[in-house]
This record gives sequence, C-alpha cells and structure tokens, in this order.
Amino acid sequence: MRIISKAAAMQKCALQWKCRGVRVGFVPTMGYLHAGHLSLVREARKRVGKNGKIVVSIYVNPTQFAPTEDLAKYPRDLKRDLKLCRDAGVDVVFTPTDTEMYPRWGESLSSPTEFSTYVVEEKLSQTMEGAARPTHFRGVTTVVAKLFNLVLPDVAVFGQKDFQQAAVIKRMVADLNFPVKIIVAPTLRERDGLAMSSRNKFLDADERAQAVILFHALRAASLTVKKKPVSALRLKADLKEFITAAPLARLDYVEFFDPETLAPTAQVKRGTQMALAVFVGKTRLIDNMQL
Amino acid sequence: MRIISKAAAMQKCALQWKCRGVRVGFVPTMGYLHAGHLSLVREARKRVGKNGKIVVSIYVNPTQFAPTEDLAKYPRDLKRDLKLCRDAGVDVVFTPTDTEMYPRWGESLSSPTEFSTYVVEEKLSQTMEGAARPTHFRGVTTVVAKLFNLVLPDVAVFGQKDFQQAAVIKRMVADLNFPVKIIVAPTLRERDGLAMSSRNKFLDADERAQAVILFHALRAASLTVKKKPVSALRLKADLKEFITAAPLARLDYVEFFDPETLAPTAQVKRGTQMALAVFVGKTRLIDNMQL
Repeated sequence: MRIISKAAAMQKCALQWKCRGVRVGFVPTMGYLHAGHLSLVREARKRVGKNGKIVVSIYVNPTQFAPTEDLAKYPRDLKRDLKLCRDAGVDVVFTPTDTEMYPRWGESLSSPTEFSTYVVEEKLSQTMEGAARPTHFRGVTTVVAKLFNLVLPDVAVFGQKDFQQAAVIKRMVADLNFPVKIIVAPTLRERDGLAMSSRNKFLDADERAQAVILFHALRAASLTVKKKPVSALRLKADLKEFITAAPLARLDYVEFFDPETLAPTAQVKRGTQMALAVFVGKTRLIDNMQL
Repeated sequence: MRIISKAAAMQKCALQWKCRGVRVGFVPTMGYLHAGHLSLVREARKRVGKNGKIVVSIYVNPTQFAPTEDLAKYPRDLKRDLKLCRDAGVDVVFTPTDTEMYPRWGESLSSPTEFSTYVVEEKLSQTMEGAARPTHFRGVTTVVAKLFNLVLPDVAVFGQKDFQQAAVIKRMVADLNFPVKIIVAPTLRERDGLAMSSRNKFLDADERAQAVILFHALRAASLTVKKKPVSALRLKADLKEFITAAPLARLDYVEFFDPETLAPTAQVKRGTQMALAVFVGKTRLIDNMQL
C-alpha cells in the first residue's frame, strides 16, 4: 500500500493508471475509520475488480466546517487508519495537508494569490444540513471536485448515512459532467441500531446509550406511516415529543422529503425519506431512513 | 474529422483516448471562427504533436450572457466553422445543444431536477468584465469545467484577448486541480491593429473604422509610460479624453493592473497590464496589452 501526501504525486499516479486503462475506485473520508468506511472500500473493490486500484483519501477538510464547529477536535488516528486500509486491501491512501489542498490557505487573507474557486450546488444543499450549516456543502462539493481531479476515479463510493451529501454530490457530478460513477452504500449500524460515525467517539456512556434515540425515531416514524399517510407537521411534533424520552437529546431538525429530489412532502407515507439531526450532549448526530 | 453533438459521446471518445494514452489538445470557442481561433488550434497541435488529438468545441454558452446581452444575436455560421476546422486539421468538433449541456434548461424553473451546480471564482473575476457583467464569469468557469470533464484535455488553449478570462480559468484549474495545462496564446490583430473578435462582424463601415481606437489607446498608454511611471487616475482621464477622437466610441472601463494577480496599480509603468472595454455603436469590444 502506497501513502501519498502530495497532490501532484497523487494526480501523477492517477494519470499513469488512466494511460494504462486501470480502473480506479475511490472512497473519500475524513479518517478515524470505522466498519462503515470499510464497507465502502469493499463496495469500491467489487466495482473495479481485483485488477483495479482502490484509493482512500483521509482529509479533514476545513472548508466544510464553520468557525464554530468541531474542526479542531474532529477525531484523528492516522496510524490506526493506515492499518485498517492495509488490511482492507487499499492500494493508495491519499493524506494531503491543508496547504497541499489549499495553497497559501490563511497565509494572507487579502492576497489575490490565495485560493478563490468554489463549487456550489444551489438547490439540494439549501435544506437540512445546508440550512443548519450554511457553508458546509460548498466546502464538500469543492473538496470532492478537487479530490476527483486528483484521483481521477471511475467509481466513487459514499455512505448513505450522509444522505443529503450523497444527493448533492450526485447532482454535482451530473451537472459538471465528472466522468465518475457515484455509488451510495447502505449505512452500517451498531448492534443497538446507532448509525456508525466517527463522531460517536465523542459520546460518554450515558450519551452513547441515549444516542439510539435517532434510530428509534426513524423506526417509530416507519411504523406510524405503515398503514396510512400522516401529515408531516403532525409527525414532526410527535417525533419532537418522542425524542424527549432521551433527556440528553435535543432535536435539531427532522424532515420528510422525496428521496430523489429532496423536495419536502406535506404527507408522509411509505417510501418517503426521513432525515434528522439530534444533539446528544454537545455532539451533533445525523441519521436517515426510507420509511 | 468527427462532429459530436452529444455530451456522453464526447466523454466516451475522450475516455477511450485516455485509456490509450493519446494526448488531447482543446480549444473551447463560441464559434464564428476567425484567424485568432485558428492560431489557437495551431498552438494546441504544437503542444500535443501529430499523434495527439485536437478538439474544438463550438458552443454559445447561455449562462455567461446576462438577459440584457447579445446571446440571441451572437453570430453563428456552423457550416463555415466546420470547414475551417477541417482545413486546420481538427480531429473532433464538439457542438452540443443547450439541452445537452444544461438538461431541462428552462423547462421548469422551480423543479429541483434542473441544473443547480456552478463553479465560481471569487477574486480575479470581481473587476473589469466581472464588474461590467456580474454573472459572466460564473457562466464561463461553469461551462469550462463541464467541457474539461467531457473532453478531458491534457492542454487547453485560450486567447489573450480575453485576458481576465484566461486568468480566471488558470486560477480555477489550479484551485480545483484540473489535470489540464492552460496555454494563453497571443491576440491576433487586423492590419490596422483591431483585435480579431467574432463581435467585429456587428460593426458597420464607420464603426469598423473607428474601432481601431482601442488599439490606439493601448499604444498611446504604452508610449506615455515608456519613460516614466504615471498615475493611473491621470492616465485614465487622459485615455477617456483620447477616445473621444472616435465619436462612435464610448469608454466602458479602462484598468491598469498586475498581469499575474490582476491587482489594480496606482502607478502605471512598463510591464503594467492595461485592459479596456469600449462600446463602438452598440457593439462592446475589449482589448488589452502589457505596456
């Protein structure tokens, strides 16, 4: 397994593969890998075959965090990540630094020689995570565009846990004609149903026990709409109440929408997508499910 | 010479070239080709060699025109363009339609299934053409990103006449890590010095005669600063006056700036870049020169 930290070296490697017709599968991550990430790696391998190459990027992208968010304390453990990647049969781990990705980042805010190009998605990114974190998706689309240009993958695999992110990326790829097939792989869950996430590490024992409330809320909503459609307003109120069962939890948002267009629905029925964000203590968790 | 009108077919062709290690040179145009464009084709051929492939795109991109601008009357002559490309040894002419480039364009402005991703450059694009035409560069960077992803060129050639555009594209390529080398080729001029441009076709005989005022203004400024630096404010006032010599001409802007950073300079000296936009009758022309 090769570890590449320079953007130019990553792109050179990718261009050499391209010239030789080697298929490339790509899993972009922020590191602190868990079984969910490894399932994305397996999915990527399935898509490109044993003669293909798998690239995992490990990069905590500053442009997708607001100044008030958890960038500085986002969990990191590169040594462990590298071992997991090696064991998973990854070919290249790309671990760029901030100054590799954003030359002159923060060096001089007034200088016209610093970074100034962004990729913006202006529709699907407006609700939910985009409303709660206004500059988040601009950072995501920009860094993913950069990574695609550096890794030149045929296939890239994203996790369904970040449902809206996957939708925004698919829209970006279609709109800007990136020659990349986007695969969205199912959310992996702990035994009690909590969606796997690097941020689960922040939870203390009590919070961890109560964090399962997101999964239970999704299941409760599924049950509710199984027989007949329910008004979204009504169900939101019921779920807000439902979540008070976990005293450490505080609902940020819950939304019901079309899984393709992300258009909000007034009537929630089977097949409607539900997504929610909940603070458990100081940790903000998200989850989603097709009801 | 192959003519491709479908985006998917263009990308497939480009991917096949990539797998075989064929180098690709790309000249994006809005058609109505003139000798300036053909010099870009020659430059592209020089860069990729005789075994390389040259793609010329002919596409009048609607997203870089404001509603008040000359999109509808922008000159078109595809038959003549194709002959010129054939004679110039072009391998593929890519002629997409609006619905190929922007699926569901204008079909439903409220539908979340329409186009919603843009590439924006937020520094170099703020002055001059960006100030005069506020949505222009967003349209340019977006369509060029799309074309790069469809044509997958190793080298792309732009004309120096659109100096700011070339600077914005170079910044986009660096910031988003496109694996494309950008070449900026010199402006070609008519015998009297008028920069070649498809929009020159709009000029009647009187306007055509007076359009040379842009070139003369550039030369006058060059002469003025040859011996010693001059204040930009002073020189702007002098040039505004100078241009009144052509009664059909009306200055839109004249700017002096660093050719690398586009930062405006208070003192104009040898090596300073000058750019200007002038309405001649109803036609807006631009030109620039390093003094």
